[in-house]
Amino acid sequence: MSILVVGSIALDTVETPFGQAEEALGGAAVYFSYAASFFGHVRLVGVVGSDFPEEHLELLKNRDIDLAGLERADGATFRWKGRYDYDLNEAHTLDTQLNVFETFAPAIPEKFRDSDFVFLANIQPGLQLQVARQVKAPRIVACDTMNFWIEGAYDQLRETLKSVDILVINDAEARELAREPSLVKAARQILKWGPRTLVVKRGEYGVLMFSDHSVFSAPAYPLEDVYDPTGAGDTFAGGFMGYLSTQEEINEMAIRQAIIFGSTLASFNVEDFSLNRMKTLQMQDILERFAEFKLLSHFEEVEDAGL
Amino acid sequence: MSILVVGSIALDTVETPFGQAEEALGGAAVYFSYAASFFGHVRLVGVVGSDFPEEHLELLKNRDIDLAGLERADGATFRWKGRYDYDLNEAHTLDTQLNVFETFAPAIPEKFRDSDFVFLANIQPGLQLQVARQVKAPRIVACDTMNFWIEGAYDQLRETLKSVDILVINDAEARELAREPSLVKAARQILKWGPRTLVVKRGEYGVLMFSDHSVFSAPAYPLEDVYDPTGAGDTFAGGFMGYLSTQEEINEMAIRQAIIFGSTLASFNVEDFSLNRMKTLQMQDILERFAEFKLLSHFEEVEDAGL
Repeated sequence: MSILVVGSIALDTVETPFGQAEEALGGAAVYFSYAASFFGHVRLVGVVGSDFPEEHLELLKNRDIDLAGLERADGATFRWKGRYDYDLNEAHTLDTQLNVFETFAPAIPEKFRDSDFVFLANIQPGLQLQVARQVKAPRIVACDTMNFWIEGAYDQLRETLKSVDILVINDAEARELAREPSLVKAARQILKWGPRTLVVKRGEYGVLMFSDHSVFSAPAYPLEDVYDPTGAGDTFAGGFMGYLSTQEEINEMAIRQAIIFGSTLASFNVEDFSLNRMKTLQMQDILERFAEFKLLSHFEEVEDAGL
Repeated sequence: MSILVVGSIALDTVETPFGQAEEALGGAAVYFSYAASFFGHVRLVGVVGSDFPEEHLELLKNRDIDLAGLERADGATFRWKGRYDYDLNEAHTLDTQLNVFETFAPAIPEKFRDSDFVFLANIQPGLQLQVARQVKAPRIVACDTMNFWIEGAYDQLRETLKSVDILVINDAEARELAREPSLVKAARQILKWGPRTLVVKRGEYGVLMFSDHSVFSAPAYPLEDVYDPTGAGDTFAGGFMGYLSTQEEINEMAIRQAIIFGSTLASFNVEDFSLNRMKTLQMQDILERFAEFKLLSHFEEVEDAGL
């Protein structure tokens, strides 16, 4: 099954308590693609500038990621500069240079329009909707967004959500989108606006999934140190959509397992800067950590006779 | 099996976004006792002033909680006044009047000294140790503490920990106690100081349990609204120790189940002010919510052949 992703490709400069990375490969579409490529065939739509290092493209091509939708524009690649302190849940943005990403108008190649799974990474909601409409008969459309669009393009975002099956955002975004401090109430509200499933990322606290009839709570993997949280959310989404693309039926259990695969991929990604840890990751590592997640959250039912 | 608890008995005045309670029954030993009383025979050691309403004592007696260790001192009962905003994880203390609790010197009645399970609620660490030493042959000694003692009685607390099997604290306290921002590293450190098990309470994010050989992550129950988080931690501890007291062998799985029972009791307690929700709670409600916790965190293993 084919997985289409539209989103940013970036050169990130990141500082954390454990070190730093200069102009390293990043961007939502990159993290997503790499993670999803463990499970299926990925098609990437994005833009880079004329200064984008060829080696980064080679890395993606070697994962069998189709770059037919990659635009090379005149100018500089999108750059983000940020810092994390010991509270690694919060990124402090030091500088953002949109560059060629500022006027990005995603064009979906004809051969990508039969994609089965579509992930609309965090871009302008109107563009997200345009992309969704260009795909003929997607099985699943998932999307991400951020506070910037919730505040600045609320009506467009609400319109886009009507075409989305699964919304993948963090807890602060869910509360802000629904204008409701209770996360559970916010989730109930958002599920009335289009998505059948809401996946709420909570960083070191794991993931909560809401659907009409159930709630699922996934733990985070208890790492000694998070070296660099950049890209964790998009890596999660890549593992999540990647696993779903292997499933004949997208039912409740498939979505729960996909959340654990997403969490697994994200837990590896934060062990090093940029995509460094991902480069050496093997499917065997992923399956072993999936099994660890099972142990981490397992408890047996009780015989109630004695109580 | 008998469960001994030593800790505060208070009259709480609490304000949350959902309402307020004036001079309501509270205190660590009270919340603990009530929750534990669903599972076993509880013995309470604490102090109240001459102004303490008789009806509160009746409530505890009706739960078969043994008050032989309750001291009635001349003076006023311990009072706490606090406020919670929408971020219900954080209490803002408006006023604390220790009153008779300030000079509390817990005396363990002779008939309590054969207790099997001991919970040292949050009191001065030196007093906690005195209590632990007065119990002849406890199967499990668990304790709580707070930043005030970590900062003001660090050496005494470290000494007390040598006699403790299970330490039950929140994540900020665990980090502060170990002087280590990584929770996983902090846990590893604390486990070298005495406790064989560390239970870390994370409010709306659930509970993490660390032992020498494993980590367990328990979800929090996704409530639409938390009306009053006061006493949630001690109610958790009461359900936790209460369930353990029903077990012939205190093994890994018993501790995991006990954490879910603790979380279950706490999830009910925060549905109303003071112990109001607890007063109508039945064992059947507890068992049903325990089963919901199982559904909440359940996912199946994967066949790895296809990946």
